[in-house]
Amino acid sequence: MQDSLNKKQDIPSQVISSLSNNTMKHVKGLLLRKYREENHQFIVEGRKMVSEALSSGHTVDMLVFSETGAGRKAGEDGLRTDDAGTEEPASIPDPLLSVAMIKEIPCRITTDCIFKTISDTQTPQGVLAVVKEKEYNLEKVIGQTTGFLVLLDGVRDPGNLGTIVRTVDAAGGDGVILIHDCVDPYNPKAVRSTMGSVFRIPVFPCRDTAELIDKLVRFGYHIVTSHLNGSNIFKWQGGHARTALVIGSESHGVSQQMIDSADSLVKIPMAGGAESLNASVAAGILIYEIFRKGRKMDE
Amino acid sequence: MQDSLNKKQDIPSQVISSLSNNTMKHVKGLLLRKYREENHQFIVEGRKMVSEALSSGHTVDMLVFSETGAGRKAGEDGLRTDDAGTEEPASIPDPLLSVAMIKEIPCRITTDCIFKTISDTQTPQGVLAVVKEKEYNLEKVIGQTTGFLVLLDGVRDPGNLGTIVRTVDAAGGDGVILIHDCVDPYNPKAVRSTMGSVFRIPVFPCRDTAELIDKLVRFGYHIVTSHLNGSNIFKWQGGHARTALVIGSESHGVSQQMIDSADSLVKIPMAGGAESLNASVAAGILIYEIFRKGRKMDE
Repeated sequence: MQDSLNKKQDIPSQVISSLSNNTMKHVKGLLLRKYREENHQFIVEGRKMVSEALSSGHTVDMLVFSETGAGRKAGEDGLRTDDAGTEEPASIPDPLLSVAMIKEIPCRITTDCIFKTISDTQTPQGVLAVVKEKEYNLEKVIGQTTGFLVLLDGVRDPGNLGTIVRTVDAAGGDGVILIHDCVDPYNPKAVRSTMGSVFRIPVFPCRDTAELIDKLVRFGYHIVTSHLNGSNIFKWQGGHARTALVIGSESHGVSQQMIDSADSLVKIPMAGGAESLNASVAAGILIYEIFRKGRKMDE
Repeated sequence: MQDSLNKKQDIPSQVISSLSNNTMKHVKGLLLRKYREENHQFIVEGRKMVSEALSSGHTVDMLVFSETGAGRKAGEDGLRTDDAGTEEPASIPDPLLSVAMIKEIPCRITTDCIFKTISDTQTPQGVLAVVKEKEYNLEKVIGQTTGFLVLLDGVRDPGNLGTIVRTVDAAGGDGVILIHDCVDPYNPKAVRSTMGSVFRIPVFPCRDTAELIDKLVRFGYHIVTSHLNGSNIFKWQGGHARTALVIGSESHGVSQQMIDSADSLVKIPMAGGAESLNASVAAGILIYEIFRKGRKMDE
């Protein structure tokens, strides 16, 4: 009986139609960095990202559907409010809802209009997940790395941060550490740009850069830093057991602290008329050059 | 006298305050692809881009300033309406305006409000240029290339297109040819993302792909195409005298026609959990790998 009650609680039978509803206020609040940091939660949107969140090692605290997202408006009642009493359900339940029910994750349905206000996208897909921030241990991440880490030094654009995280994941990197006032990795646009990689590799800020450098040195990392006066990355020897690649912001580059700590300063050669590359593109070229040399592709 | 009259015509003394003004209607129209194609003109915005346009080989047909952009609102009357009659000008004229006057390019000033409606950006910098499309000769571009060309096959995102043009320029590539219904290279966002590279290298569509392939073969190009089943780009030999790199759209990849015409099919290895890379990042890695092998960096 208790079981059945709990289950009933998890199946959304009512559509939330007021923004003064506490749950909606909470979800909307998570669009703001300060509120995210206070609550150690963030939002991911869209079926693919929500699905990745559900199958990741992260804790999903809640799913929110819009009426259209839940199939309510289209007349396909994919959500059964009562398991008994119907021999054949009207249609197949939403697969995300099924997973949520198995995992006992609370689900809510809201009007399309309210969903738009709690969504960060122009054309919401009608489903989002509230996910608990994962805590990472700096020493553990540094100690367990078998390939390379990327340090982002003051990267301010959420799209760049997310895209770089995605590239690090693609190249088999072990994590991304944020130093010197980077944009919040749980910013909705940053999360979206990772395309799910935020669930696969550690991404976290480190407030004590001196301690970080100390640990990198202690664990035998080669610190390679991108710099306008660096040497050609393609002529850089590379191939170290452990590498930490430092990437600065497009506008200010890398901090003096990370320049001073570098074992190598490198740059991407510019052969044509362009003064610089897009920050995500530059990071991608550097990351894959570390990948290429680490895997000794030319041998 | 005639000279003085002409000069007077080029110096904006009146602020256009109506959107029904024909010039403003024309400039606003250029936000639309169809109207751009009919008029063979496009818009670039911001001081840096306008400055690049003025010093490029492109013909600039007009400059438009907002009142704030022209320094009118801030009380700095940088625009002299009368060269005579004042022994010392109130302040130094806007450098862009000075260049425009020397080159006899018509200039207009409009209210900040109207400027916002003809601008494609959220926070306009208050200056834009109407630029004539440059005509490129396919055979000439292909025949004169000493390094590599990039063919974009159905790339639909203007930001990706612009960023790839910027990367090709940075890596010393000779041009970007658009096939199979790419986004318009003169889309305002695409132009913005090139960061001026659209003025430095040829970027143009080619409607007859078969003819293009024929010419590439005739001029001895090695056609290398990105493909999910291609071989590892880092193990690809490269180093050909002339290379044409074909890049597809993020969603559909490369067309069958370009797969069939390829001398090499290549891909970027994915070592981690990410399924794919951002399209601009992937293009950047491929472009710089062609650069690296073309310049024989490892020797």
